[in-house]
Amino acid sequence: MPIFNAPVQDIQFVLQDVLKVTTTGVPGYEDLEADFTSAVLEEAGKVARDVLAPLNASGDAEGCVLENGTVRTPKGFDAAFAAMKDGGWTALDCDPEYGGQGLPYLMGTAVGEIFVSANMAFNMYQGLTHGAYSAIHTHGTDAQKAMYLPKMVSCEWTGTMNLTEPHAGTDLGMMRTKAEPQDDGSYAITGQKIFISAGEHDLADNIIHLVLAKAPGGGESTKGISLFIVPKFLVNEDGSLGERNGVTVGSIEHKMGIHGNATCVMNYDGAKGWLLGDLHKGMKAMFTMMNEARLGVGLQGYAVAEAAYQNAVVYARERLQGRDVTGTKNPDGAADPLIVHPDIRRALMDQKSFVEGARAFTFWGAHLIDRSVRMGDAEAEGLISLMTPVIKGFQTDKGFEMAVQAQQIWGGHGYIEENGMSQFVRDARIAQIYEGANGIQALDLVGRKLAQDGGKHVMAFFEIIKTFIKEHQDDAQMKPFTDPLKAASKDLQAAAMYFMQNGVKNPNNALAGSYDFMHMMGHVCLGLMWARMGKAALDGLAAGSGDKAFLETKIATGRYYMARHLPATGMHLARIESGADPVMALAADAF
Amino acid sequence: MPIFNAPVQDIQFVLQDVLKVTTTGVPGYEDLEADFTSAVLEEAGKVARDVLAPLNASGDAEGCVLENGTVRTPKGFDAAFAAMKDGGWTALDCDPEYGGQGLPYLMGTAVGEIFVSANMAFNMYQGLTHGAYSAIHTHGTDAQKAMYLPKMVSCEWTGTMNLTEPHAGTDLGMMRTKAEPQDDGSYAITGQKIFISAGEHDLADNIIHLVLAKAPGGGESTKGISLFIVPKFLVNEDGSLGERNGVTVGSIEHKMGIHGNATCVMNYDGAKGWLLGDLHKGMKAMFTMMNEARLGVGLQGYAVAEAAYQNAVVYARERLQGRDVTGTKNPDGAADPLIVHPDIRRALMDQKSFVEGARAFTFWGAHLIDRSVRMGDAEAEGLISLMTPVIKGFQTDKGFEMAVQAQQIWGGHGYIEENGMSQFVRDARIAQIYEGANGIQALDLVGRKLAQDGGKHVMAFFEIIKTFIKEHQDDAQMKPFTDPLKAASKDLQAAAMYFMQNGVKNPNNALAGSYDFMHMMGHVCLGLMWARMGKAALDGLAAGSGDKAFLETKIATGRYYMARHLPATGMHLARIESGADPVMALAADAF
Repeated sequence: MPIFNAPVQDIQFVLQDVLKVTTTGVPGYEDLEADFTSAVLEEAGKVARDVLAPLNASGDAEGCVLENGTVRTPKGFDAAFAAMKDGGWTALDCDPEYGGQGLPYLMGTAVGEIFVSANMAFNMYQGLTHGAYSAIHTHGTDAQKAMYLPKMVSCEWTGTMNLTEPHAGTDLGMMRTKAEPQDDGSYAITGQKIFISAGEHDLADNIIHLVLAKAPGGGESTKGISLFIVPKFLVNEDGSLGERNGVTVGSIEHKMGIHGNATCVMNYDGAKGWLLGDLHKGMKAMFTMMNEARLGVGLQGYAVAEAAYQNAVVYARERLQGRDVTGTKNPDGAADPLIVHPDIRRALMDQKSFVEGARAFTFWGAHLIDRSVRMGDAEAEGLISLMTPVIKGFQTDKGFEMAVQAQQIWGGHGYIEENGMSQFVRDARIAQIYEGANGIQALDLVGRKLAQDGGKHVMAFFEIIKTFIKEHQDDAQMKPFTDPLKAASKDLQAAAMYFMQNGVKNPNNALAGSYDFMHMMGHVCLGLMWARMGKAALDGLAAGSGDKAFLETKIATGRYYMARHLPATGMHLARIESGADPVMALAADAF
Repeated sequence: MPIFNAPVQDIQFVLQDVLKVTTTGVPGYEDLEADFTSAVLEEAGKVARDVLAPLNASGDAEGCVLENGTVRTPKGFDAAFAAMKDGGWTALDCDPEYGGQGLPYLMGTAVGEIFVSANMAFNMYQGLTHGAYSAIHTHGTDAQKAMYLPKMVSCEWTGTMNLTEPHAGTDLGMMRTKAEPQDDGSYAITGQKIFISAGEHDLADNIIHLVLAKAPGGGESTKGISLFIVPKFLVNEDGSLGERNGVTVGSIEHKMGIHGNATCVMNYDGAKGWLLGDLHKGMKAMFTMMNEARLGVGLQGYAVAEAAYQNAVVYARERLQGRDVTGTKNPDGAADPLIVHPDIRRALMDQKSFVEGARAFTFWGAHLIDRSVRMGDAEAEGLISLMTPVIKGFQTDKGFEMAVQAQQIWGGHGYIEENGMSQFVRDARIAQIYEGANGIQALDLVGRKLAQDGGKHVMAFFEIIKTFIKEHQDDAQMKPFTDPLKAASKDLQAAAMYFMQNGVKNPNNALAGSYDFMHMMGHVCLGLMWARMGKAALDGLAAGSGDKAFLETKIATGRYYMARHLPATGMHLARIESGADPVMALAADAF
């Protein structure tokens, strides 16, 4: 069975040495002293190792079963969910007014990484509830918040998001679910939603569905869409559960992965729903949650890769096969361990340097959200809006690629389901698809975010890089970081320039290069993160503080990323600069 | 259910217009007139579409079951296997002396592609038999050939390859299976083999296992290994089946994909075996089959991608979502089809240009094997030896990547097993692993093949490219092919030069870049193939012969490959030139 150990030291390094959280002045960050965050992370690590990870493979093998109108989750999920609730883990970064612990979103993200690595499918029950909690917290009336949030903070009730319909995925304007106003101020919701994660299950007393639907008077486009709260059981005035609402699970999907999470077809048959936020402003209400939800999926990308990587390392150390060509390393054994071989090292370093870079990027994103929410920092809000599609799209693509590489190290044994490496690959795959397929992320980045507010945010990003390079380029120890970062960001700027100059005469010149741009920007962002981490590690070494071997490893890992990953930007630039013509040359019927 | 239509016109284009098979002077190629090959391919296409493809998804869902010591294959496999036998498809390129039809290996490859695309797992039963047939045909005595080959040509008996043991995969020197000489000239084989594809099943009357084992006197290394024929049922003098041999299936594996093929643990308990080829020369006997077997796996890489691509195209044409930003294309519909969107085009063009390039490369490889075997062409033998790890490693990596891209086009629906896109991804994954994991292919390429015969073969390859560019660089229509090919091959030569200059002082400088080199070389090879295909298509247009729209599509697809895939070589070169240091910087316990 795969192992998992929470990478607490690596997480602490980003929080304390790179972000230096307590010095940022963000309200609430003053609590995040190293001792405190370490204690929380260690404790989360124990839950992850002892409670969640042991259910990962069994949950995959067993899957969810639809029986008599409800979904039975895999054996042990109910006890584990109870442990998560009892430990207060579901309430970590929620509002104290509703029973939350009030920790910053950054801290919820750090702990969330650990839980996702241990058991991605299981953690979705809580993760989706958190998303629904945020939507109600931001857009709900006081009465709605009082009615739903305390139970959702504790996860006695869980939540869902209902967007997709059979014929309407990305293109939500085509949705058909209707909301008819009723005399009592509620709406009758009728329609079918698909791909509803945790739509039905046996882990909670009630399920609070957030449903996009069209109410009269809004027109046919996305502008006519409103957001509704539709509980599985109606809630009485006193908070007790009332009658069953008109929402049922039609079927559950047989999927490639995340078998432990029920993906449901939900049928709404005149179900009672209450408007959340403004009428006909449902898309806006959904979008305010997007940054958070997409950052959460970007986190899944590298968190699953972290778990896969840990198991690749175990195998590379234990499996004896072949000899080190530069001299035998294990003379008493029949062969040397795999880890002596350069190509195995390449694969492990690829994984390690990606995961650690992505962690820093994701935590920076969570920090920007905290700055935006807790301080009203407009620049932070602009930056995270720009970065969100990159965190989601780039990190889930690379996370999947790295899970595949980790599986590859196991050779034929990696293809056997019982060894668990296949599950990492199958689970990681969904993160590239849901919460906006990665092609949509690229479109969002190039079609919307680059030009947002007159291009202010991307200029701010380039300025951050420029300033960093200027500050550190004369430091010889930093050159292996600053030189590649400079070259890569120059490529990225050239690509942005290409879009500006050629996208006006033909928008396809920008759109055909959008996917490459997203990946390019991902590399530049992780390059910036590694440059910051390199600097923090060098400072730690100079100060003689901290774990010397750990800091040296950090620097070597960062140098690997700069030397071996960043050269991808040149390739992406060349692809982008070939423009729309090669991409659009064929007639649709020539494929 | 996924569709599959044999790409006969594309296959014909490579055979007739690019390779111009009948003009090559290879004995047997004189039969390959366009009308003949077209008839064979069309017929194979019907079998693939009507018999094999309909069993692909059901075979995946049902899988193989071990019952009472034998394996039950999925429903319909027996009837389909009978149809393959009755149609003479298993005998296509086998020796007429043993009942084969004597067609060139190239023709077997072209037909094989169609069958693999339709149902990879099913086709392995026949594919492995062909590999065992080749081994016996090359190394067997006349008596062995007479005893086994006729039944293997007809697939009344199937074959297997037994190499791997639990602790010995790549490192076969560690194997423990023993062969004890018996008085009657046979050997008693004892040991356990794992990952034996088609090791046991219900499709044939007998199974002829080829087993690597150690006979006394050969020492402990791979040098002590011999190859043995171990039939499931002993064969009497008259060819009838005798008693059951001491070989049994211990269990079958629960795998990520290729569920329709039984992957078996085989236990040999003093089983009667007969030496095949020379004593203690078993590795050599295995290696003579390697080129063919690895080419077959490289074919699986792109053949599965072809099937996935066809289904991505169907979905991209049918699924209505969003509008073309340059102007509505489907005004009467609720939205435009996906195929109008540039990023969908990018993904489809990536797939199409890879698959068609890989087909040409694989067919060229098969043609080199025919030249080597049928004409004793030493240069062809050297070239295919060099190309084999590239065909296997590069094409299976890219084939998997393209299957993932095809699945991605289906969005959330691609993640649902019933739609079949997941199966393409899960099936394609194994090709990167078996028949030598792709890291081993890279090692074979850089550690062995580059320097083989004093580097003669790689020099010959560079000479082919140089000559092609020289001949065509003044042709303006060929510039979009020759310019990128020139730049990419320059990168490849620089990488080879780096290995020469730095590999001597530290072999890890070469090995750390081996994987990148394999991919680089793959791109250069496909670039060369596209340049040839471009030329053939331009010639066809100039002559006014052939299907104009088809030829123009071919040129546009090739230009896409040159513009969008070939820039990868610069990235790989930069990675290679960063040398072993970043890769090997960490101590083994720092991971």
